[in-house]
Amino acid sequence: MSDFAAIEIPQRILLGPGPSDVPHRVLEAMARPTIGHLDPVFLQLMDQTRAMLQRVWRTSNPMTLAVSGTGSAGMETLLVNLVERGDTVLVGVNGVFGGRIKDTAERCGGKVVALERPWGEVFEPGEVIDAVRRHRPAVTALVHAETSTGAHQPVEGIAEVVHDAGGLLLLDCVTSLGGVPVEIDAWGVDAAYSGTQKCLSCPPGLSPVTLSPRAVEKLDRRSGKVPSWYLDLTMVRNYWGEDRTYHHTAPINMLFALHEALRMVLDEGLDARFERHRVMHDRLRQGLEELGMRYLSQSGHTLPMLNCVAVPEGVDEAQVRRTLLGDYGIEVGPGLGAFKGKAIRIGLMGNSATRRNVALVLAALKAALPLASAA
Amino acid sequence: MSDFAAIEIPQRILLGPGPSDVPHRVLEAMARPTIGHLDPVFLQLMDQTRAMLQRVWRTSNPMTLAVSGTGSAGMETLLVNLVERGDTVLVGVNGVFGGRIKDTAERCGGKVVALERPWGEVFEPGEVIDAVRRHRPAVTALVHAETSTGAHQPVEGIAEVVHDAGGLLLLDCVTSLGGVPVEIDAWGVDAAYSGTQKCLSCPPGLSPVTLSPRAVEKLDRRSGKVPSWYLDLTMVRNYWGEDRTYHHTAPINMLFALHEALRMVLDEGLDARFERHRVMHDRLRQGLEELGMRYLSQSGHTLPMLNCVAVPEGVDEAQVRRTLLGDYGIEVGPGLGAFKGKAIRIGLMGNSATRRNVALVLAALKAALPLASAA
Repeated sequence: MSDFAAIEIPQRILLGPGPSDVPHRVLEAMARPTIGHLDPVFLQLMDQTRAMLQRVWRTSNPMTLAVSGTGSAGMETLLVNLVERGDTVLVGVNGVFGGRIKDTAERCGGKVVALERPWGEVFEPGEVIDAVRRHRPAVTALVHAETSTGAHQPVEGIAEVVHDAGGLLLLDCVTSLGGVPVEIDAWGVDAAYSGTQKCLSCPPGLSPVTLSPRAVEKLDRRSGKVPSWYLDLTMVRNYWGEDRTYHHTAPINMLFALHEALRMVLDEGLDARFERHRVMHDRLRQGLEELGMRYLSQSGHTLPMLNCVAVPEGVDEAQVRRTLLGDYGIEVGPGLGAFKGKAIRIGLMGNSATRRNVALVLAALKAALPLASAA
Repeated sequence: MSDFAAIEIPQRILLGPGPSDVPHRVLEAMARPTIGHLDPVFLQLMDQTRAMLQRVWRTSNPMTLAVSGTGSAGMETLLVNLVERGDTVLVGVNGVFGGRIKDTAERCGGKVVALERPWGEVFEPGEVIDAVRRHRPAVTALVHAETSTGAHQPVEGIAEVVHDAGGLLLLDCVTSLGGVPVEIDAWGVDAAYSGTQKCLSCPPGLSPVTLSPRAVEKLDRRSGKVPSWYLDLTMVRNYWGEDRTYHHTAPINMLFALHEALRMVLDEGLDARFERHRVMHDRLRQGLEELGMRYLSQSGHTLPMLNCVAVPEGVDEAQVRRTLLGDYGIEVGPGLGAFKGKAIRIGLMGNSATRRNVALVLAALKAALPLASAA
């Protein structure tokens, strides 16, 4: 016998910055018996998964697939494939995840121009456009939903200028996909990545990505091999495409889960899902403001699924989170970076965005705030 | 409603080069409700997972963890962290997976010296040692279990010379871990990677890796950032270590599965597990030879869990595999590379290595071979 006991996994309510609550239907799908990564049934499941991802991304991009890693692996996949050594990369940095793009683009050998804004704010499309005209970047990268601040970046109207300057528009949609409109084709986005564990309500472990024909053309024009073997889309695409050439063993059961999660998203309907996120956010916001909690994201640009709020003066935010987890089994997230110790982040993502959860987290906060107060 | 029906997943018997059959206990563990990647219960599960991985690797290396990707992500993690631009990397290439290390080491900027052997053969320790003395590589990489040929590489006695020359010994244990002895500390291996979906009988999606203090020292001495953000062990170790600094969202449910799979491995006992693999291999080998199927791996160096055999003259190997899958629900693997169209690969990995499966695959082959014969 091993000395290691089974660990009792508690039933949490996940209202943090992700993962979100996973429906039982998805967990059950994930637990179906593992089959081979070249099994004809599995290939059919991959084809359907791609077709559903195209609908969720609102794109006709043939190169739409799930990278075998979490959201950050999707980010790195797009950068390592689309940024060549010496390329200028314009990155909007107004939180942790813009900073992460900057760091990764630099590791790919890109010459990064960082466009900065204080945490919580968004970029005016005009200032992005001005910077594009000035720097003519090979890649312009923005964070659609900045999970560290709750800011909702406007994207429309930028791609045309990016394209005129000969570049590609790249978008971090880790937290937005499935929760607010993401219009890859209508907005002219060339490359986007997401994660499964946010508004798609699937466990973490895969990163949906999509690349426009313009992005694929840049990939095909590369002067040398992609620096990463694992994330090299010139090979990965042959497994997801008609050739079905073995590259690496896909995370089979994770794809069972994603397939089922996408079916649930499309069964609900994207527009209905966006509306549900919006309505639950409005309820939550009203309750939080009544509790004296102020949003840290720019007014008019607040994400419905990620509510980053300052804790009232004198309140110990870590204590608030401990009470919520310990007494109520509710997970919320801490502030990150500039907001560390000052904020909590309440997620209402995918399956977690319900009236019941909004009522519960508000009731729990009402009880927890006085307990965590220095006064 | 979505237009996408649920896909019926068939109950296969997985006797290919991986994935192997996953025990129900592991599938059930994986389907437990998702919790947060910083939840105290999850951190406890990670600590136990590391402790169990140390036992399975037979190492006391503190830097032992599961990379958030499949086996190839583990390979890339070790190379991208341990190979710096200009480093000499000696790679033993005697099949697909040695070739993959070579390709990846080159992408990391390594100057690769390939030591080559015909497919199916192994390297004599003496010839590896000679090459190490000649080239004094920063990293010497060997494939312990070459999944494309079934060859079982001897490793003992090499590390001392590698270390004397100032280098590190890196070992691909994707297919060997949990099926034949892997003695990280006793053999002096500095860096090794595996996959979950072979002899550990867990679904694919994680790559166990271990690094010796000597390897960690090289990592700490790097002159620049690791070229990959996602696989950067200088950051990943702070999440697996005591700091618990958020890096990326771990594949939570995959780690539930790995934790349970490792408990099953240790419950059986490593030595008993190796013996079971050996006994099942002997039974299979006898039956295959009776059917006129010849092993393509060097005599005396055949892996028990990966049986790469030539199909008899005039037999269409693809037809054999189709019959096995279609009529019996059994997956076996095709030949790769030099063996494409000439061989099939029969895996007896982890939970798949049973008397029942050996008897079944031999009976099915006996029926399928005449059907696929041109005669």
